[in-house]
Amino acid sequence: MADRPILTVCTSCRAGHDLAEGQTPPGRLLHDALAEALATQPEPPVELRGAACMAACARGCTAAIAAPGKWTYLLGELDREMAGDLLTYASAYAAHATGALLPSRRPESLRRAVIARLPDFTLPKDPAA
Amino acid sequence: MADRPILTVCTSCRAGHDLAEGQTPPGRLLHDALAEALATQPEPPVELRGAACMAACARGCTAAIAAPGKWTYLLGELDREMAGDLLTYASAYAAHATGALLPSRRPESLRRAVIARLPDFTLPKDPAA
Repeated sequence: MADRPILTVCTSCRAGHDLAEGQTPPGRLLHDALAEALATQPEPPVELRGAACMAACARGCTAAIAAPGKWTYLLGELDREMAGDLLTYASAYAAHATGALLPSRRPESLRRAVIARLPDFTLPKDPAA
Repeated sequence: MADRPILTVCTSCRAGHDLAEGQTPPGRLLHDALAEALATQPEPPVELRGAACMAACARGCTAAIAAPGKWTYLLGELDREMAGDLLTYASAYAAHATGALLPSRRPESLRRAVIARLPDFTLPKDPAA
């Protein structure tokens, strides 16, 4: 895994709606808005990835951020207008020791976006948990 | 990471309810039911872990299963009565190449349990996604 956190966006997400023929899925639009914003940064805070269907359709658009040794956070109810806030959040996540940012440390649009968090499965078992 | 999948249960989960003083959280009961069932198996199909708050409170109890190179699946609305079904599912996940089991291949109680799935972040980026 790279040192930078990895931000994975569900590129097939329709955010609970049917798509008209030829319409780009909102998840792809979110991914591409993030890619565009990252392309302007000399030191992008995250590596952007896409995934086809993260199976969180009821709460799409969806993205997950992960880094070695940190909690993985799964976020939902995202849209392309939140790309800037997502990158602000990603920078704070990158700078945080465990990734467990308090809601008050997230941009306003993301305060209720957390669907779940998962421990880093590559770490040894914590016998106290 | 071990070769066996890792099944992580949110041990602090109250499944959306208040706890009476001294009451054991339902997430801990689920974890312990799984531990008890696994202890009877000569070759447990998974390594069981606990995590304190996986932040999916609205859909608790919650668990996640992960293995190197496979999709991580996050499951919700679980309870201790589903421990046997969870281990049946875990065995099928362990035997599956990608972990992406069709709902029809999961025990009935788990067909609607998937909250989300996440790619293995430790893999190299898939440029096609």
